[in-house]
Amino acid sequence: MIGQLRHQPPQPGGADDLVIACPPLRSQVNLARIVRLAGCCGVREMIVTGQTRIDPKIARDALEQVRIHRHRSLLPVLLKWRRRGYPLVGLEQTTQSVPLPQFRFPRPCLLVVGHERLGVEPEILRELDAAVEIPVFGRPSSYNVATATAIAVYEYCRQGM
Amino acid sequence: MIGQLRHQPPQPGGADDLVIACPPLRSQVNLARIVRLAGCCGVREMIVTGQTRIDPKIARDALEQVRIHRHRSLLPVLLKWRRRGYPLVGLEQTTQSVPLPQFRFPRPCLLVVGHERLGVEPEILRELDAAVEIPVFGRPSSYNVATATAIAVYEYCRQGM
Repeated sequence: MIGQLRHQPPQPGGADDLVIACPPLRSQVNLARIVRLAGCCGVREMIVTGQTRIDPKIARDALEQVRIHRHRSLLPVLLKWRRRGYPLVGLEQTTQSVPLPQFRFPRPCLLVVGHERLGVEPEILRELDAAVEIPVFGRPSSYNVATATAIAVYEYCRQGM
Repeated sequence: MIGQLRHQPPQPGGADDLVIACPPLRSQVNLARIVRLAGCCGVREMIVTGQTRIDPKIARDALEQVRIHRHRSLLPVLLKWRRRGYPLVGLEQTTQSVPLPQFRFPRPCLLVVGHERLGVEPEILRELDAAVEIPVFGRPSSYNVATATAIAVYEYCRQGM
């Protein structure tokens, strides 16, 4: 007889050596959903741009685990993290992006996600060490930013298992 | 010089042999987000319970690709699909669930997702051929239902590549 087992204790590992960086997003809901996902996956640090509020009803106790670094602009802080040893990986369809299932994440790693409409800005694209894209098999032709981040962070965790 | 490549044409394959079944969800946003994800991943058929509206601003042109089957209750239609050759795989933490990275999806397959609070109902759990769970490495201890569905469907697509 199969029974539910809800709210199991978390496992060690996951994405505790991954930093997620977000540009100013259009949707506060998307940002809060990324924070919740980060919490579930064991992420410890996120870089958030601008003064957007993170809704605690969506992010839940991820807010107690994930340290949020707020910055006015993204590029300078990305370059600082890279100097500390975090290669910059962008989540974007580009002329040089590698499909996510074929990409081998460096560890540690800083994952840069894109704006809902504009994607990853050109001045940041220029500084990336790599870009990954999630294959699309139908319509619409792009994933929601929080959905795409969830898929990429799952793949990061999977590769570390 | 890295340049963006947005809205690439879809690839063949993906999850075109996967059916996603949803119980009545609390949030119309979650349902519409699952429909968009299904579209991106090439899913052709979804089973939806109840009369919930699917917001076209969220689901976008997935609504033109994914055929939505609406039913009053979920169990009878699941059993019908199983008789047609679709094993029932539940996305739920159970006493017998397999971690998603270790699970080998049957193809074709019917993926049953759970209610936001209640998960997959006991009467459906009893009929499952398998259950998969997504490993959790931090807090909160469970993924949003649309996030979890995105991760599971990505893994399904990945295994088929």
